[in-house]
Amino acid sequence: MGLLKKKSDELPPLEETAGEFVIADGEDYINEIFENDMRISRSFTRLQLDEKEYRENYSRVIQELLATGEHKFFVAVDRYGRYLGHVWVCLRVDTVDFVLAAYIFDIETLFPGIGIGSALLERAEEWAQAMGVKKVSLRVELDNTASEWYRRKGYRDRAVVMEKPL
Amino acid sequence: MGLLKKKSDELPPLEETAGEFVIADGEDYINEIFENDMRISRSFTRLQLDEKEYRENYSRVIQELLATGEHKFFVAVDRYGRYLGHVWVCLRVDTVDFVLAAYIFDIETLFPGIGIGSALLERAEEWAQAMGVKKVSLRVELDNTASEWYRRKGYRDRAVVMEKPL
Repeated sequence: MGLLKKKSDELPPLEETAGEFVIADGEDYINEIFENDMRISRSFTRLQLDEKEYRENYSRVIQELLATGEHKFFVAVDRYGRYLGHVWVCLRVDTVDFVLAAYIFDIETLFPGIGIGSALLERAEEWAQAMGVKKVSLRVELDNTASEWYRRKGYRDRAVVMEKPL
Repeated sequence: MGLLKKKSDELPPLEETAGEFVIADGEDYINEIFENDMRISRSFTRLQLDEKEYRENYSRVIQELLATGEHKFFVAVDRYGRYLGHVWVCLRVDTVDFVLAAYIFDIETLFPGIGIGSALLERAEEWAQAMGVKKVSLRVELDNTASEWYRRKGYRDRAVVMEKPL
Protein backbone atom coordinates (compact mmCIF):
# COMPACT_ATOMS: atom_id res chain seq x y z
CA MET A 1 0.00 0.00 0.00
CA GLY A 2 3.04 2.30 0.20
CA LEU A 3 2.13 3.51 3.66
CA LEU A 4 3.86 6.72 4.72
CA LYS A 5 5.88 6.39 7.90
CA LYS A 6 5.56 9.32 10.25
CA LYS A 7 5.27 9.78 13.96
CA SER A 8 1.63 9.84 15.01
CA ASP A 9 1.88 13.38 16.41
CA GLU A 10 2.99 14.64 12.99
CA LEU A 11 0.03 13.13 11.17
CA PRO A 12 -3.03 15.08 10.06
CA PRO A 13 -6.30 14.37 11.89
CA LEU A 14 -8.04 11.13 10.84
CA GLU A 15 -11.04 12.97 9.46
CA GLU A 16 -8.80 14.68 6.91
CA THR A 17 -7.33 11.44 5.60
CA ALA A 18 -10.30 9.06 5.92
CA GLY A 19 -11.62 9.93 2.46
CA GLU A 20 -8.70 8.22 0.74
CA PHE A 21 -9.09 4.93 2.55
CA VAL A 22 -7.94 1.55 1.23
CA ILE A 23 -9.14 -1.92 2.23
CA ALA A 24 -6.53 -4.27 3.66
CA ASP A 25 -6.33 -7.59 5.48
CA GLY A 26 -7.35 -7.00 9.06
CA GLU A 27 -5.35 -9.58 10.95
CA ASP A 28 -2.71 -7.03 12.00
CA TYR A 29 -5.43 -4.74 13.36
CA ILE A 30 -7.16 -7.13 15.76
CA ASN A 31 -6.57 -4.87 18.77
CA GLU A 32 -8.06 -1.80 17.09
CA ILE A 33 -10.92 -3.89 15.71
CA PHE A 34 -12.04 -5.30 19.04
CA GLU A 35 -11.40 -2.08 20.93
CA ASN A 36 -13.66 -0.21 18.54
CA ASP A 37 -16.21 -3.02 18.40
CA MET A 38 -16.42 -3.27 22.18
CA ARG A 39 -17.18 0.43 22.40
CA ILE A 40 -19.82 0.39 19.65
CA SER A 41 -21.42 -2.88 20.74
CA ARG A 42 -22.15 -1.44 24.13
CA SER A 43 -24.45 1.13 22.53
CA PHE A 44 -26.68 -1.71 21.32
CA THR A 45 -27.10 -3.51 24.62
CA ARG A 46 -30.45 -3.15 26.35
CA LEU A 47 -29.45 -4.57 29.70
CA GLN A 48 -27.27 -2.63 32.07
CA LEU A 49 -23.88 -4.03 33.02
CA ASP A 50 -21.10 -2.31 34.89
CA GLU A 51 -17.86 -1.72 32.97
CA LYS A 52 -16.02 -4.70 34.45
CA GLU A 53 -18.83 -7.18 33.80
CA TYR A 54 -19.36 -5.86 30.30
CA ARG A 55 -15.65 -6.19 29.44
CA GLU A 56 -15.49 -9.72 30.83
CA ASN A 57 -18.62 -10.86 29.05
CA TYR A 58 -17.58 -9.16 25.82
CA SER A 59 -14.26 -10.98 25.91
CA ARG A 60 -16.00 -14.31 26.59
CA VAL A 61 -18.41 -13.82 23.69
CA ILE A 62 -15.59 -13.00 21.28
CA GLN A 63 -13.59 -16.06 22.34
CA GLU A 64 -16.68 -18.27 21.90
CA LEU A 65 -17.42 -16.85 18.47
CA LEU A 66 -13.81 -17.26 17.33
CA ALA A 67 -13.83 -20.91 18.45
CA THR A 68 -16.08 -22.06 15.60
CA GLY A 69 -15.83 -21.49 11.87
CA GLU A 70 -13.22 -19.78 9.72
CA HIS A 71 -12.79 -16.09 10.44
CA LYS A 72 -11.61 -13.25 8.26
CA PHE A 73 -11.12 -9.57 8.99
CA PHE A 74 -10.72 -6.69 6.60
CA VAL A 75 -9.96 -3.14 7.64
CA ALA A 76 -10.24 0.22 6.01
CA VAL A 77 -7.09 2.27 6.69
CA ASP A 78 -5.96 5.73 5.69
CA ARG A 79 -2.71 6.36 3.79
CA TYR A 80 -0.79 6.23 7.05
CA GLY A 81 -2.19 2.79 7.86
CA ARG A 82 -4.52 4.07 10.54
CA TYR A 83 -7.68 2.10 11.35
CA LEU A 84 -10.93 3.57 9.99
CA GLY A 85 -13.31 0.63 10.17
CA HIS A 86 -13.58 -3.11 9.76
CA VAL A 87 -15.66 -6.05 8.71
CA TRP A 88 -15.59 -9.37 10.55
CA VAL A 89 -16.90 -12.32 8.56
CA CYS A 90 -17.09 -15.99 9.52
CA LEU A 91 -17.55 -19.03 7.29
CA ARG A 92 -19.64 -21.79 8.79
CA VAL A 93 -22.33 -24.26 7.90
CA ASP A 94 -25.58 -22.37 8.27
CA THR A 95 -27.97 -23.60 10.96
CA VAL A 96 -31.05 -23.34 8.75
CA ASP A 97 -30.07 -24.10 5.17
CA PHE A 98 -27.14 -26.37 6.10
CA VAL A 99 -24.89 -24.95 3.42
CA LEU A 100 -21.55 -23.18 3.74
CA ALA A 101 -22.46 -19.59 4.51
CA ALA A 102 -20.70 -16.39 5.47
CA TYR A 103 -21.92 -14.67 8.59
CA ILE A 104 -21.07 -11.01 9.08
CA PHE A 105 -20.60 -10.28 12.76
CA ASP A 106 -19.74 -6.60 12.28
CA ILE A 107 -19.25 -3.85 9.85
CA GLU A 108 -18.18 -0.71 11.60
CA THR A 109 -16.68 2.55 10.45
CA LEU A 110 -15.48 5.62 12.30
CA PHE A 111 -16.66 7.84 9.42
CA PRO A 112 -20.10 6.93 8.04
CA GLY A 113 -21.26 8.17 4.68
CA ILE A 114 -18.00 8.19 2.70
CA GLY A 115 -18.18 4.62 1.35
CA ILE A 116 -16.04 2.77 3.87
CA GLY A 117 -18.84 0.38 4.89
CA SER A 118 -19.77 -0.32 1.27
CA ALA A 119 -16.16 -1.09 0.36
CA LEU A 120 -15.76 -3.38 3.38
CA LEU A 121 -18.97 -5.26 2.57
CA GLU A 122 -17.95 -5.64 -1.07
CA ARG A 123 -14.56 -7.05 -0.09
CA ALA A 124 -16.11 -9.45 2.41
CA GLU A 125 -18.61 -10.71 -0.17
CA GLU A 126 -15.88 -11.17 -2.80
CA TRP A 127 -13.81 -13.14 -0.33
CA ALA A 128 -16.79 -15.29 0.70
CA GLN A 129 -17.68 -16.02 -2.90
CA ALA A 130 -14.11 -17.07 -3.65
CA MET A 131 -14.34 -19.43 -0.66
CA GLY A 132 -17.34 -21.19 -2.21
CA VAL A 133 -20.02 -19.70 0.00
CA LYS A 134 -23.68 -19.84 -1.10
CA LYS A 135 -25.08 -16.92 0.89
CA VAL A 136 -24.21 -14.18 3.35
CA SER A 137 -26.21 -13.73 6.57
CA LEU A 138 -26.27 -11.13 9.31
CA ARG A 139 -28.38 -9.87 12.17
CA VAL A 140 -29.68 -6.31 12.48
CA GLU A 141 -31.38 -4.96 15.60
CA LEU A 142 -34.91 -3.73 14.86
CA ASP A 143 -34.11 -0.20 16.02
CA ASN A 144 -31.04 -0.01 13.78
CA THR A 145 -31.47 1.76 10.46
CA ALA A 146 -28.68 -0.43 9.01
CA SER A 147 -31.38 -2.78 7.73
CA GLU A 148 -32.26 -0.19 5.04
CA TRP A 149 -28.62 0.06 4.06
CA TYR A 150 -28.39 -3.72 3.70
CA ARG A 151 -31.57 -3.79 1.61
CA ARG A 152 -29.92 -1.44 -0.84
CA LYS A 153 -27.03 -3.92 -0.98
CA GLY A 154 -29.38 -6.76 -1.96
CA TYR A 155 -30.04 -8.30 1.46
CA ARG A 156 -33.54 -9.51 2.28
CA ASP A 157 -35.28 -10.37 5.57
CA ARG A 158 -35.18 -14.06 6.30
CA ALA A 159 -36.03 -14.58 9.97
CA VAL A 160 -36.86 -12.71 13.14
CA VAL A 161 -35.03 -13.01 16.46
CA MET A 162 -37.52 -12.96 19.32
CA GLU A 163 -36.82 -12.47 23.01
CA LYS A 164 -38.52 -12.66 26.37
CA PRO A 165 -37.03 -11.32 29.60
CA LEU A 166 -37.15 -13.75 32.52
CA MET B 1 -42.83 -41.68 35.94
CA GLY B 2 -44.02 -45.25 36.44
CA LEU B 3 -43.60 -46.09 32.79
CA LEU B 4 -45.42 -49.22 31.65
CA LYS B 5 -43.14 -51.81 30.11
CA LYS B 6 -44.59 -53.50 27.06
CA LYS B 7 -43.22 -54.64 23.75
CA SER B 8 -43.63 -51.93 21.16
CA ASP B 9 -45.93 -54.04 18.95
CA GLU B 10 -48.38 -54.41 21.87
CA LEU B 11 -48.64 -50.66 22.46
CA PRO B 12 -51.51 -48.48 21.27
CA PRO B 13 -50.74 -46.00 18.47
CA LEU B 14 -48.91 -42.87 19.58
CA GLU B 15 -51.82 -40.61 18.67
CA GLU B 16 -53.98 -42.38 21.26
CA THR B 17 -51.52 -41.89 24.10
CA ALA B 18 -50.04 -38.48 23.21
CA GLY B 19 -52.73 -36.56 25.12
CA GLU B 20 -51.43 -37.79 28.47
CA PHE B 21 -47.85 -36.68 27.93
CA VAL B 22 -45.38 -35.84 30.65
CA ILE B 23 -42.21 -33.72 30.43
CA ALA B 24 -38.94 -35.44 31.30
CA ASP B 25 -35.20 -34.84 31.02
CA GLY B 26 -34.23 -35.40 27.42
CA GLU B 27 -30.66 -36.66 27.68
CA ASP B 28 -31.74 -40.31 27.25
CA TYR B 29 -33.63 -39.39 24.07
CA ILE B 30 -30.85 -37.73 22.10
CA ASN B 31 -31.19 -40.16 19.18
CA GLU B 32 -34.94 -39.61 18.82
CA ILE B 33 -34.47 -35.87 19.26
CA PHE B 34 -31.93 -35.45 16.48
CA GLU B 35 -33.60 -37.93 14.18
CA ASN B 36 -36.85 -35.98 14.42
CA ASP B 37 -35.11 -32.62 14.25
CA MET B 38 -33.12 -33.58 11.16
CA ARG B 39 -36.34 -34.53 9.40
CA ILE B 40 -38.22 -31.37 10.38
CA SER B 41 -35.27 -29.02 9.84
CA ARG B 42 -35.03 -30.11 6.23
CA SER B 43 -38.50 -28.71 5.58
CA PHE B 44 -37.18 -25.22 6.47
CA THR B 45 -34.17 -25.21 4.18
CA ARG B 46 -34.41 -23.11 1.05
CA LEU B 47 -31.38 -24.47 -0.73
CA GLN B 48 -31.39 -27.91 -2.28
CA LEU B 49 -28.98 -30.52 -0.97
CA ASP B 50 -28.90 -34.21 -1.73
CA GLU B 51 -29.58 -36.56 1.17
CA LYS B 52 -25.94 -37.39 1.84
CA GLU B 53 -24.78 -33.77 1.86
CA TYR B 54 -27.71 -32.71 4.02
CA ARG B 55 -26.98 -35.43 6.59
CA GLU B 56 -23.29 -34.59 6.72
CA ASN B 57 -23.89 -30.87 7.04
CA TYR B 58 -26.65 -31.38 9.61
CA SER B 59 -24.30 -33.48 11.72
CA ARG B 60 -21.55 -30.87 11.44
CA VAL B 61 -23.90 -28.05 12.49
CA ILE B 62 -25.11 -29.98 15.53
CA GLN B 63 -21.56 -30.76 16.64
CA GLU B 64 -20.58 -27.11 16.25
CA LEU B 65 -23.60 -25.93 18.21
CA LEU B 66 -22.98 -28.43 21.01
CA ALA B 67 -19.35 -27.30 21.30
CA THR B 68 -20.25 -23.97 22.93
CA GLY B 69 -22.47 -23.18 25.91
CA GLU B 70 -24.36 -25.38 28.34
CA HIS B 71 -27.04 -27.51 26.72
CA LYS B 72 -30.25 -28.95 28.11
CA PHE B 73 -32.91 -31.11 26.52
CA PHE B 74 -36.42 -31.86 27.70
CA VAL B 75 -38.77 -34.31 26.04
CA ALA B 76 -42.47 -34.92 26.12
CA VAL B 77 -43.17 -38.65 26.38
CA ASP B 78 -46.33 -40.71 26.58
CA ARG B 79 -47.02 -43.10 29.44
CA TYR B 80 -44.94 -45.76 27.74
CA GLY B 81 -41.95 -43.43 27.57
CA ARG B 82 -42.29 -42.86 23.86
CA TYR B 83 -40.91 -39.64 22.36
CA LEU B 84 -43.55 -37.03 21.42
CA GLY B 85 -41.49 -33.86 21.13
CA HIS B 86 -38.57 -31.95 22.57
CA VAL B 87 -37.05 -28.63 23.42
CA TRP B 88 -33.33 -27.92 23.06
CA VAL B 89 -32.08 -24.96 25.04
CA CYS B 90 -28.55 -23.59 25.38
CA LEU B 91 -27.13 -21.21 27.99
CA ARG B 92 -24.53 -18.80 26.70
CA VAL B 93 -23.46 -15.19 26.93
CA ASP B 94 -25.62 -13.34 24.46
CA THR B 95 -23.82 -11.69 21.52
CA VAL B 96 -25.81 -8.45 21.76
CA ASP B 97 -26.65 -7.78 25.40
CA PHE B 98 -23.62 -9.63 26.79
CA VAL B 99 -25.61 -11.26 29.58
CA LEU B 100 -26.20 -14.93 30.33
CA ALA B 101 -29.10 -15.89 28.08
CA ALA B 102 -30.96 -19.02 27.09
CA TYR B 103 -31.19 -19.71 23.39
CA ILE B 104 -33.88 -22.10 22.19
CA PHE B 105 -32.63 -24.02 19.16
CA ASP B 106 -35.79 -26.10 18.74
CA ILE B 107 -39.20 -26.84 20.05
CA GLU B 108 -40.79 -29.64 18.08
CA THR B 109 -43.76 -31.87 18.66
CA LEU B 110 -45.21 -34.76 16.69
CA PHE B 111 -48.74 -33.72 17.73
CA PRO B 112 -49.40 -29.97 17.53
CA GLY B 113 -52.35 -28.39 19.31
CA ILE B 114 -52.53 -30.50 22.47
CA GLY B 115 -50.21 -28.46 24.67
CA ILE B 116 -46.94 -30.32 24.24
CA GLY B 117 -45.07 -27.31 22.89
CA SER B 118 -46.41 -25.04 25.62
CA ALA B 119 -45.38 -27.48 28.34
CA LEU B 120 -41.90 -27.88 26.83
CA LEU B 121 -41.42 -24.12 26.57
CA GLU B 122 -42.58 -23.60 30.15
CA ARG B 123 -40.16 -26.23 31.44
CA ALA B 124 -37.28 -24.76 29.45
CA GLU B 125 -38.01 -21.26 30.78
CA GLU B 126 -38.26 -22.53 34.38
CA TRP B 127 -34.93 -24.28 34.00
CA ALA B 128 -33.28 -21.22 32.45
CA GLN B 129 -34.60 -18.96 35.20
CA ALA B 130 -33.27 -21.33 37.87
CA MET B 131 -29.87 -21.16 36.11
CA GLY B 132 -29.79 -17.36 36.53
CA VAL B 133 -30.62 -16.43 32.96
CA LYS B 134 -31.84 -12.89 32.15
CA LYS B 135 -33.66 -13.57 28.89
CA VAL B 136 -34.64 -16.24 26.40
CA SER B 137 -33.93 -15.79 22.68
CA LEU B 138 -34.85 -17.72 19.58
CA ARG B 139 -35.01 -17.40 15.81
CA VAL B 140 -38.18 -17.86 13.76
CA GLU B 141 -38.22 -18.02 9.96
CA LEU B 142 -40.42 -15.27 8.47
CA ASP B 143 -42.70 -17.79 6.75
CA ASN B 144 -43.22 -19.75 9.97
CA THR B 145 -46.42 -19.01 11.90
CA ALA B 146 -44.62 -19.98 15.12
CA SER B 147 -43.85 -16.30 15.65
CA GLU B 148 -47.52 -15.72 16.55
CA TRP B 149 -47.39 -18.60 19.00
CA TYR B 150 -44.29 -17.12 20.66
CA ARG B 151 -45.93 -13.69 20.85
CA ARG B 152 -48.74 -15.25 22.89
CA LYS B 153 -46.05 -16.64 25.19
CA GLY B 154 -44.63 -13.17 25.81
CA TYR B 155 -41.85 -13.08 23.21
CA ARG B 156 -41.20 -9.88 21.27
CA ASP B 157 -39.30 -9.16 18.06
CA ARG B 158 -35.79 -7.96 18.73
CA ALA B 159 -33.80 -8.24 15.50
CA VAL B 160 -34.04 -9.36 11.92
CA VAL B 161 -31.80 -11.87 10.18
CA MET B 162 -31.02 -10.73 6.64
CA GLU B 163 -29.53 -12.75 3.82
CA LYS B 164 -28.14 -12.35 0.35
CA PRO B 165 -27.40 -15.22 -2.03
CA LEU B 166 -23.99 -15.07 -3.67
